[in-house]
Amino acid sequence: MTTPQASQLDAAQIQALMAIVGPDAVKTGDEIAPEYARDELVSTSSYPDAVVEPANTAQVRAIMRFAHTHRIPVTVRGAGTGLCGGSVPVHGGIVLSTTRLNRILEIDRECMTATVEPGVLLLDFQKEVEKLGLFYPPDPGEKSATLGGNVSTNAGGMRAVKYGVTRDYVRGLEVVLADGEIVQLGGKPAKNSSGYNLVQLLVGSEGTLGVITKIILRLVPLPALRMSLLAPFPALATAIAAVPAILNSGVTPTALEFFQDKVLHAFEESMGKPFPHTGAPAYLLIMLDGNSQTELDAAYAAVAEVCLRQQALDVLIADTSERHSALWEARGSFLQAVKAMSEIDEVDVVTPISRIAEFIMFCDSLAEEYGVRIYSFGHAGDGNGHVYLLRDAMDDATWRQRQDEVMRIIYQKGAELGGAVSGEHGIGRAKRVYLHEQVGETYMRLLRQIKQVFDPLGILNPGKII
Amino acid sequence: MTTPQASQLDAAQIQALMAIVGPDAVKTGDEIAPEYARDELVSTSSYPDAVVEPANTAQVRAIMRFAHTHRIPVTVRGAGTGLCGGSVPVHGGIVLSTTRLNRILEIDRECMTATVEPGVLLLDFQKEVEKLGLFYPPDPGEKSATLGGNVSTNAGGMRAVKYGVTRDYVRGLEVVLADGEIVQLGGKPAKNSSGYNLVQLLVGSEGTLGVITKIILRLVPLPALRMSLLAPFPALATAIAAVPAILNSGVTPTALEFFQDKVLHAFEESMGKPFPHTGAPAYLLIMLDGNSQTELDAAYAAVAEVCLRQQALDVLIADTSERHSALWEARGSFLQAVKAMSEIDEVDVVTPISRIAEFIMFCDSLAEEYGVRIYSFGHAGDGNGHVYLLRDAMDDATWRQRQDEVMRIIYQKGAELGGAVSGEHGIGRAKRVYLHEQVGETYMRLLRQIKQVFDPLGILNPGKII
Repeated sequence: MTTPQASQLDAAQIQALMAIVGPDAVKTGDEIAPEYARDELVSTSSYPDAVVEPANTAQVRAIMRFAHTHRIPVTVRGAGTGLCGGSVPVHGGIVLSTTRLNRILEIDRECMTATVEPGVLLLDFQKEVEKLGLFYPPDPGEKSATLGGNVSTNAGGMRAVKYGVTRDYVRGLEVVLADGEIVQLGGKPAKNSSGYNLVQLLVGSEGTLGVITKIILRLVPLPALRMSLLAPFPALATAIAAVPAILNSGVTPTALEFFQDKVLHAFEESMGKPFPHTGAPAYLLIMLDGNSQTELDAAYAAVAEVCLRQQALDVLIADTSERHSALWEARGSFLQAVKAMSEIDEVDVVTPISRIAEFIMFCDSLAEEYGVRIYSFGHAGDGNGHVYLLRDAMDDATWRQRQDEVMRIIYQKGAELGGAVSGEHGIGRAKRVYLHEQVGETYMRLLRQIKQVFDPLGILNPGKII
Repeated sequence: MTTPQASQLDAAQIQALMAIVGPDAVKTGDEIAPEYARDELVSTSSYPDAVVEPANTAQVRAIMRFAHTHRIPVTVRGAGTGLCGGSVPVHGGIVLSTTRLNRILEIDRECMTATVEPGVLLLDFQKEVEKLGLFYPPDPGEKSATLGGNVSTNAGGMRAVKYGVTRDYVRGLEVVLADGEIVQLGGKPAKNSSGYNLVQLLVGSEGTLGVITKIILRLVPLPALRMSLLAPFPALATAIAAVPAILNSGVTPTALEFFQDKVLHAFEESMGKPFPHTGAPAYLLIMLDGNSQTELDAAYAAVAEVCLRQQALDVLIADTSERHSALWEARGSFLQAVKAMSEIDEVDVVTPISRIAEFIMFCDSLAEEYGVRIYSFGHAGDGNGHVYLLRDAMDDATWRQRQDEVMRIIYQKGAELGGAVSGEHGIGRAKRVYLHEQVGETYMRLLRQIKQVFDPLGILNPGKII
């Protein structure tokens, strides 16, 4: 595959881009804000030569035709909230920002689908559909992400235990290919067995196969009732070990999260708010939803009983919408709280649910051995733990060495346990080497050749995944 | 792409295959039963040069290496219950039968997954997991199909309304590629954002991209209670028009089927059993499931009310397991009943749920105009109607002409309504031309090039999909 050189765009090329999208929608040089050179976590920083903000599919097509002719790298960027460098233009060229592609085009109540542009924010979309009594279940911690970003990384989030991940809600896509051709993939129908599933190939492809310009999403009825349980445990090990028992109780929780007490301290310190309970070494936070109080009460009783049998110190119920929201807003800000303490690096390994306790305990045990603070929380209910390494006061060289050592050991453990490199954040730039090591050469050859089918010149988000 | 010539295998080649799988597991010439030359519906008939029955992945690998070296077509076949020629070896060569790859290797209760070989029958698998209080929701009408066949066509079935299709339950695959390389795709983890999703690319690829040798399937808890409703309607139009109203009631039925009275007559005649109700022009058959009687009663009341408001003549309840089973066994044999009357051809178009009534009424209206009996039933709840053309006493030429004319009009209508060529049966051989017409050249180019990535010599199930 051709990897394009970082190409400084000349004045005529900038003019050509301005002719496509209008002069205000092209930014160059000092007009480019620093966030366009990085994402939320990775230290990689690389400025694009231009940030271009198309307003419709026709403009995206014209940009891609132009980039294809001139072999200019194009990196699609939503809100830049990624965690592995996926939207960082490491080869320069054009950042195609989806900021102006931000319309909810249709909510079809009869088909229970929504058709949206990729720049719509998750937060805004969830609110809009809930007003209509509908529900879009995928719920990543970062609500200011775009739906296009969610689709490109196959974002997961808290409610995956019961409802699945972004992939499970994508029915159709409009995609502009590398050469500017437009294809319609899938559509509103609920089922489809008509040739290879290109929709599912594009979901999670991190902008390397095409530019998504429209998304058809499946919606479900909004559950009438929700309640949450907070269960403090005497140890991280007992907390996580309770998870399979809960999942086998016959009740499928909406969400089933774990976190350590040190994460709560970080939360209280950085947010200046108390968490409803502290002092226990580890917690499970469980959400239940349903349409009748009887159903919910029965589910609550079953889950509480399992928790107590599994050594929970207590089971606190949050059955008002205020208490419920307070807990989940706190949970939603844990990453921010940890980041407020130190520069961090993250692991997003997903393991079979039966191995998540072993994985998290293993990661936790590395802290002392390697002299690095390790914090963990995440989606216990689907085997997707988030483990964070804190840089604290380390100098560059020490930090890099520590990251390399610890990460390699952690990914190796994940693989041993039958896990995958990323549960929901994607591979981007940061995890390519771990992916390659885990899946092997035949697998990587298939990925590279599929990339070549869609993007023979290698202009779409070069340097990512493969 | 190279399309291999139908190659008569010579005696040495047959010997080589026998050396791989044992002499009893290779059949040639008159030993090959007629069903290996066709599937359940399509008139296409073409014998393979050999039927080979490997017993494990190593043997599949050896067969593929051999076939690759000698450029021999390989068509994988499960139970041969397909409906569009997918398993018919139209270029001769080897039929790789999965009959002996029929072990349930593991049921992991903690992870709620099963690992199976592709030749396990759906029927046997459903029984096995239900014994353990677990549930495998995909439920195509044809229970004697293999799981490998279900995965290869992304089979849907009755319970897709609430639970989704086969695709939604496939977590991992072991695949032998065309050249004999083995790749492990996905695994037990519940989520995965680690590179392009090859699992979902293989699901529904109808044996054209690789030979599936192991499948990791997701299971869910078995619902404690089920009940069914049968609602007779004064017309097909009112029956199907009630479907979106039911789906918007806040209750998601497990299954939501429609059928015409003439299908019931065919059933009673061919099966020699009475159906619980006849005499109304059309019916909805609705299944509900849940864990509490209160929940189920509330759902029943809501759905019954919607049906009656939508002009249902009555709502009959089947709340004993005998009555429930009788209804669904009858529904499961409708295809057989229609086939007992005449040779048939079938349409498996899926439309957006809001357009299914219009689609079915349109198809029904063609009967008189084109002088062909048209029967329809199917999955009203997910927009997937099955429409059957009956040959009756037509001679070959008339039948072929009638099929061509009517099919073209029906697929055109499906496309107009935003539908897809196949909801759950696949494209196989029979629907290639309709797929091509609907999705266009750019889309087909992507499919052809993806095929070439996996199977550059074109030996895997040549002449299918593309």
